[in-house]
Formats: sequence, structure tokens, C-alpha cells
Amino acid sequence: MTPPEGTDLPVVLLSHRGPVSFERDPEGGRTASRGAGGLVTALTGLVSDLPDAVWVCAAASGEDAAVAAEHGGRAVRVSLDAEPRVLDEDHGDAGGAPTMRLRLVEVDPKAHDDFYTVIANPLLWFLQHGMYGLALDPRLTKREHAAWEDGYVAVNRQFADAVVEEVKAVGGRALVMLHDYHFYLVGQQVREQCPEALLSFFLHIPWPGPDAWRVLPPPWRERVLHGLLGNDVVAFHTEGFARNFLLSAQELLGLPVDLEAMTVRVGDRTVAARHYPISIDVAAIRELAASPEVAEHAAALAETFGGDDRQLILRVDRTDPSKNIVRGFEAFGTLLEDHPELAGRVTFLALLQPSRQDVPEYADYLAEIGATVARINAAHGGEGWEPVDLRLGDDLALAVAAYSVCDVLMVNALADGMNLVAKESVVVNRRDGVLALSENTGAHQELGAFAVTLYPFDIQQQADALHAALIMDGALRRARREAAARVVEENDIAKWLHAQLSDLGVTPGPASDPGAASDPEPASDPGAG
Amino acid sequence: MTPPEGTDLPVVLLSHRGPVSFERDPEGGRTASRGAGGLVTALTGLVSDLPDAVWVCAAASGEDAAVAAEHGGRAVRVSLDAEPRVLDEDHGDAGGAPTMRLRLVEVDPKAHDDFYTVIANPLLWFLQHGMYGLALDPRLTKREHAAWEDGYVAVNRQFADAVVEEVKAVGGRALVMLHDYHFYLVGQQVREQCPEALLSFFLHIPWPGPDAWRVLPPPWRERVLHGLLGNDVVAFHTEGFARNFLLSAQELLGLPVDLEAMTVRVGDRTVAARHYPISIDVAAIRELAASPEVAEHAAALAETFGGDDRQLILRVDRTDPSKNIVRGFEAFGTLLEDHPELAGRVTFLALLQPSRQDVPEYADYLAEIGATVARINAAHGGEGWEPVDLRLGDDLALAVAAYSVCDVLMVNALADGMNLVAKESVVVNRRDGVLALSENTGAHQELGAFAVTLYPFDIQQQADALHAALIMDGALRRARREAAARVVEENDIAKWLHAQLSDLGVTPGPASDPGAASDPEPASDPGAG
Repeated sequence: MTPPEGTDLPVVLLSHRGPVSFERDPEGGRTASRGAGGLVTALTGLVSDLPDAVWVCAAASGEDAAVAAEHGGRAVRVSLDAEPRVLDEDHGDAGGAPTMRLRLVEVDPKAHDDFYTVIANPLLWFLQHGMYGLALDPRLTKREHAAWEDGYVAVNRQFADAVVEEVKAVGGRALVMLHDYHFYLVGQQVREQCPEALLSFFLHIPWPGPDAWRVLPPPWRERVLHGLLGNDVVAFHTEGFARNFLLSAQELLGLPVDLEAMTVRVGDRTVAARHYPISIDVAAIRELAASPEVAEHAAALAETFGGDDRQLILRVDRTDPSKNIVRGFEAFGTLLEDHPELAGRVTFLALLQPSRQDVPEYADYLAEIGATVARINAAHGGEGWEPVDLRLGDDLALAVAAYSVCDVLMVNALADGMNLVAKESVVVNRRDGVLALSENTGAHQELGAFAVTLYPFDIQQQADALHAALIMDGALRRARREAAARVVEENDIAKWLHAQLSDLGVTPGPASDPGAASDPEPASDPGAG
Repeated sequence: MTPPEGTDLPVVLLSHRGPVSFERDPEGGRTASRGAGGLVTALTGLVSDLPDAVWVCAAASGEDAAVAAEHGGRAVRVSLDAEPRVLDEDHGDAGGAPTMRLRLVEVDPKAHDDFYTVIANPLLWFLQHGMYGLALDPRLTKREHAAWEDGYVAVNRQFADAVVEEVKAVGGRALVMLHDYHFYLVGQQVREQCPEALLSFFLHIPWPGPDAWRVLPPPWRERVLHGLLGNDVVAFHTEGFARNFLLSAQELLGLPVDLEAMTVRVGDRTVAARHYPISIDVAAIRELAASPEVAEHAAALAETFGGDDRQLILRVDRTDPSKNIVRGFEAFGTLLEDHPELAGRVTFLALLQPSRQDVPEYADYLAEIGATVARINAAHGGEGWEPVDLRLGDDLALAVAAYSVCDVLMVNALADGMNLVAKESVVVNRRDGVLALSENTGAHQELGAFAVTLYPFDIQQQADALHAALIMDGALRRARREAAARVVEENDIAKWLHAQLSDLGVTPGPASDPGAASDPEPASDPGAG
């Protein structure tokens, strides 16, 4: 990649889910909610420092679409306080709160459905997490081919057009930051129309080796790869994913790659594959952990599971097959068989958020989870002791409370780009809890040295590892938990973002900075109306 | 690898299935049958030229075990005529037929079952063909751990001991040729005990990238890799598999690899990863094709399916999920939907050999095959036309007859180390048949340029490709079939073997050649009694 000479560049962000979404309340008023999660927090922090930055995302609700329509599809300025609102003017009164420019893109519902529920989830998600038993699935038929063209390709084109419009609005030079597997094709299209833009792409899920990509027919996989190679930098959570990307370009496109420099040549351009492990907002999660709501949950959990001779194993996950929840319970069942002395003394609390229940594999998987828990509780429970306490729902305060009081946190994902549950738990745990962490998570690169490693397909090994965690010496537990917490503190979400910007050689800046624009005329800003 | 200075080396072969197996007939006499297949033919040709070569394999029957027991477990000399028999003396009378030394290794049935039906098939086979939907399978429990130690590891040790005994019997220097996924651990053990042996390993199935191997817990996968790295050369069908092997050594063991030289350093040794596409015995299959039995089958097929306006699509496969039979039929069903003009004019003849029906996935797969055929025949057949003619059985003469008269041969495997059906068909076909060949077969490297390429997960593309094959211009069909046949003629099984020996820098020779033995004393030959 060739870093631009200017150090300040206006920023255009793209992600499928945005930082703010609007709803209509029963009284007919407009309400808004902030997106959750470290990524939204980090990127919100970035763009709220930059008055002209713009965040492009999908209109996620009817009210989002209404907001977009009211403004002719252009970006709107919103305040970023507890109750975000659309500001009337480009510099309208936010009451001192930070503001950001938001471009909500309304997508035809049928096209979005094809894009989202036929191609991105499940096809790309399953492929990239290695979840196809290839004997019968996937099956690419007319329906999938139509969904690819009229859904994935069309929606990518629509978002690329929106990004191009924003880049051109600032004179053609901008730092464009594209996010995740929804938008593999955007980079190439923006490059073609905005050759002076600096394009970076970040993938939040695993990138498997070339073999896995052969599940897609060549026209699809070549389009995915060429789409990504339109960027200057393609970034991943781990070095292994970055290497897999280069090997895919080599094997599937025949391009020359340099595995030392971690680059690939495409025509006269060089594209870099980089890795930046994403993280969490440590201060924010600790602030939440200190809240009365969490304290109340923690007290209730201590009441239920506490006591000197009792221990708590915890997991917090979406009910996604990639999270490997069934094998985790089977490992716990094996642990109880192998160690009858644990009867009545250890409980497995599982806080699970039902996920994608419109996808048959996900519905089946949730049923298998329920069946497995019932078998284990029937086989091992009794005398007032329920070995597995399964709670379905989505309650961040409860999860943080459980992080704080658990003795073992189990993360046994069969594949996971990063896994932020592991990072969250080590910075709020108060019982020197042991992290039991799958080797197939991105987080294992950073935290594996301080964790009990789990091999996700090996149920016996996971049972043995849980036992090792439960009987681990207190001083060792403490030392490891503290070391893991330090790693997360030192590599928090701010560092993740700053490392990328630093490597790109840019300081994001306002569009009006003349050093950033290649156009000698000051850039006009039609997108901010 | 360091080629030995001597050019002639005695040969010790190891494969799970051997070239001859004995049975007891109803009258109590001993009968024997020759193993089929190109590998057995090629290696039989090699060792029958070398009076002191020995082939180590598993006793596959009770009578094999009896033969082994009668000779104290040592190698026996057998004649290689139409009715092989054990010769009384090391140089007993074979009536002019070639002979070979055969060492049948009897394995404890329980250990063999663990080795074969728990670990090698299905675990390694499924893993290496990408057939696990990882959400629920595989599950490694106490049973699999015990099968690994008491089955796979123990059986590998037993065969390694037999090989070591044979190598030591010829003075410690020999060319040891190990075959296939049953014996990953043997190389390292032979190297430790026979440091002067030249060890080569050949894998007949795919070697996937490092990610796939993470399905095995680290102690297993490290043992597999270190077992293979005990060889001087590890050979595969394709360059892609060889590269995957080196990447596995790099990623899973942290060893330095050279992807240009295709080598990996292990301590002070260098191990080479090579590729040699296996092939067929062209003369033998053509001889069979010219036999009266095949002619009779061909006439019957022409009677059933012939006629100027009729065409025949053929597949010949084991009912292994890796062969992708269900999607093949679904593609044919799509073809009939998209092209109603084909009704009554094209038949899909499927000669399928039931396989591994004791493995639940295989039994389920056969059921799915039957269900799919029934659906397609019910939806599209009628007026005396059955679109799919499914025949279960194992009849080589019928298969060769069908090769000779088909218009299209379909090979749509989702993963296949080589696929010899494709090679057999192009050298005996007499109707300028079109090869429709999966990109995920080793054979596609050699024959893809002369085939219609199939993308095995894309049912619509396979339907379109079948149509393109059916309407292909006659001159193009002929040119392609002839070109494909020439490729196979020029790269037949003999070349596969000679290329390996040439790269190893050796001419196999008798053990008594003083140039081959490091031991100054002439080697005794206790294994040949």
C-alpha cells in the first residue's frame, strides 16, 4: 500500500449495523437506541472526534428508513448522548454532546433478505467457521445463485455507491474503513471510482484456508477475493487468518504472495494482509461492573451458587453452533462421571442468547442444547442440586455479574474470530476465576498462556481441563487472572484502532484540511445536508 | 533427504491391504486371490522383479493369519500366477511364474477394529475429505482416546516392528515404501531403529490445510506429523496437498518450511514434500475392455440405452459421501427440469458399490441416494423411460463396458485424492464421451483441460455443465477425449512409480548386492523362511 502524503484524511466508515437505530414509540414519537459492543464504541469514539466523518450503515428499522427518506438518503447529523436524536442542522445544537454523521441506507427487503439470510448468514458464516458437513450441505441451486446476484452483489453495489458518494463529497481522498463479511465486494468498487481513496477492510470472523473457499463456485470466490484486493489493507484478528487470506489469493487466483512481508501483488498494486486483535472498552465494562444493577445480580448469584465448598462454571454465548455449547455440556457431564466427589459442589451456569432461530440449523442446535442439559441434569442432579442452570435471554448486567463471581469461565468455540467474552470476564472477575479457552479462538493468541486450553472437539480433554481449573492452586489462579487482565488492559479497543491508523500512516482529520484533499478547491460537503 | 550412495537397495513395502489374500474353500483346501487395483499391480510389478523384496501387509482373513502362523510370522514366498500359492522353499518352484515375499501381520481383532473402524475410517477419512459438520461431529470421548492408543498407535507400532525386522534382516539399509493414512506413525519408528534406511511415504487421499487438522487434539496431530516427518520423502497426488502438508508442519509444529524447495527442516534433517499423480495400468484395462465378458456387457448396455437420439450419462463409484452422489443426481434432476426436451432421450446409469455400511454416516448416505433417485424418477420418468438407472454391486467388467459406451462420465467428488475412474474411462471409451470432472479431484490437475469442470457444491452449475457436455460438438468431444487418453497413456502407473524411485536416487536391487548394505557382512535373510 502507498500511504498518502497528507497525514489528515476525512473518514468514511461502513458496517452493516450502525451505532444508532431509531424506532417509533406507541405515542408516535421517535426514539433512538445506541448500538452496543466494543466495535461500535471504538468507532463512535473515532468519528465523534471528527465533525466531517460519516458512518454508512444499513437502515435497520422502518424508522431508520423514514429518517433516511426525510433527508433524501443523505447523511444526517445525530447527537451521541443517552437519547440520540437527529439534529436539524449540520451543526445543530447537541447540548454539548458529541455528534456524528450517519448515513442510513435503505435496502429493498427482498434484496436484503437474500443478502443477509441466504448468503451472509448462513453461507459465508458457516463456510468461514468450518461448519458444513460437506456430504449434503451446502447445496447451491437457482435460489442461491439468484440470492448471490440480486442480494449479495446488488446490496454490496448499493453500499459501494453510498460510500463512493461520500468519498467524492470530500474531494475523492478519504480514509475508507470497511467492516466484515457483509461487504467483501465494496473495496474494489470504491477503488475503481475513487482511485485516491485509502481503503482498509477489517474482518471480524475467521478466514479459513483456500480449501474451504472451494465451497463457493469460482465466479463467487474470485469476486470475493478481488473485492477484498481492491483495498490497500485487509486486516484480520490473527496472523493465521491473514496468512490464510494470502494463501487463498495465491491458490485461487494465482497471484504472487510474499509470506514474509505479508503482501500480495495485484497488477501494479501491493495489498497488505495485517492482523489487529480486537478488544473491549475496559473502562466501560468495569464501570458497568460497578453499577448497582450488577451488584444486585451478583448478590443473587452468590446467594444461589455461593459457599466455601461450592464452585461455579460459567459460559455466556449466543446459541450459535460455532460456540460449541453441546460439547461443552457433554464435557461437564463427563467431568461429573469421572469425579463423583463433585456432586452437589459445582454448578454450570449457562447464559445463552437465542440466535437466528429462523435458520433451521440454529433451531435444531438450540433443541440439542436443551436435550443435552436435560440428560445431564437427569443423570447427575438430585437432592436440590441442578448441575446445569440454563438461562436463555440477553442480559448484559447479569452476564457481567456472573463474570465477576464465577470460578471458571468456559469458552470452547470450535472457531471464533476473537471472542470478547473471554476478555470481558478477566477484567471484571473477583474470584480469581480460571479462563478455560479454546485454542480455536483469536483470543487464545493473547490469553492462552494464562488460560487452561480447551481442544474443542475433544470432550474428554475438556472434562479433564475443567477439573484442572476447579482444583487449581489459588496463587496460580490469581497470578494468571491478573496477568490476563493486564494483557487486556494494555491491548484495549483504543489500541486496536490506533494501531491500524498508525500503520495506515494517517491521522484522521476533517475534510476541510487542505493538506488532505488532492483537489485544490476546498471540498464541498453535499452529503451532510 | 540424502540419497544413499549405493544405487541398489533392497525394498520393504508396507500397505494395509496386500497383493494376495488366502481363504479356505468348503473342501478345506487353501485358495488365494490377487488384490485388484493399479497400486497393487504397480507395486507387484516392482517387487516381483526383486527376489528379496518383501511386502508387509495386514492378514485380511483367518486363512491369512493361518499362513502367517505356520511360518512363525515371517515372510513367505508366494507365486504370482492366476492362483497364487505359498511356495515351500525360499526359491521353491513357481512353475515359471514370478514370485514375491509377503509378510502377513496378524493383528488382534479388537485392536484392529479400533485402528480401522474408529480412527482410520471414519475419523481420518472424514477429516481429510472435509466431511465433518463440526457443530456436533466428531466427538472425541474416552472411547476414541482408547481407540487411538490401543488401536491406531498400537497397530502402527506392530507394523513398524515388522518393517524394522525386515530392514534389519537386510543389514539396515533398505528402501522402505510406506503407504497411506493407516500408517502415519511408522516412518518415525523405523527411522529411530534403522537410521540408514531410506524412507518414503505415499498418501493416497487428500491432505487438507492446517485448520482441518485442529480437529485432532494436539498430542494426536503432533504424533501424526512427527510420524510422517520420520520419512525422507512424504509424497502426495498433487502439489496442493504437498503444500498443505508443509503448512501443517509450519503452523502446528512451528517448523521452518521452504515453499519454493518444498522442504521442511526437522532438527538436522530435511524432509521433502513431493507430488506424484497416481495412475492406472493402461494396457491391463484395455486388455479387459477387449475381453468377451466386457463385449457382452457392452452389447447389453447398447441394447438398453442405445439409439441415435439417445445419450447415456454414467457414474461409477463407491457409495462414499465424498463421492457426492446425491448432489450429482440432484444436478441431473435440475437438468431435466431446465431442459424438458431431454425427456426420454438421456439416462443416468449409476454403478454404485455399497461401502462401509457398518458406519452410520455411510448407511444414511446410501438411503439418501435411494430417496433422491426415487424422487427424480417419480418426477420425470414415464412412458417406459426411467431417468436414473441405479445398480448397486461391484462388477468391474460391467463398469468397463459402461465406460466404453457412455456419452458423459460424471465425477463430481467433493474431495478425492486422485480418482482413477476418470482415468480408466478416457482410455476405453469408444463414443468420444465427455469427462465431467470435479475440480476437487487430483485428476483434475492432469485432465481438467480436456474435461467439463464441475463445482461439486453447485448443483445448478453441474446441471449446466452436464447440458454443455451432452450438446458438445462431436469434433471437440473427440479431440478432448483423445487428448485426455494421451495424457493417461503417457503418465501411467509405471511412470508414477519410476518417477518416485528416480527422485529417491535409487535403483531397487537385491539385498545381496554388497553395494547396498552398510553392514560389511553379507546380510542374512531370516525373514524369508
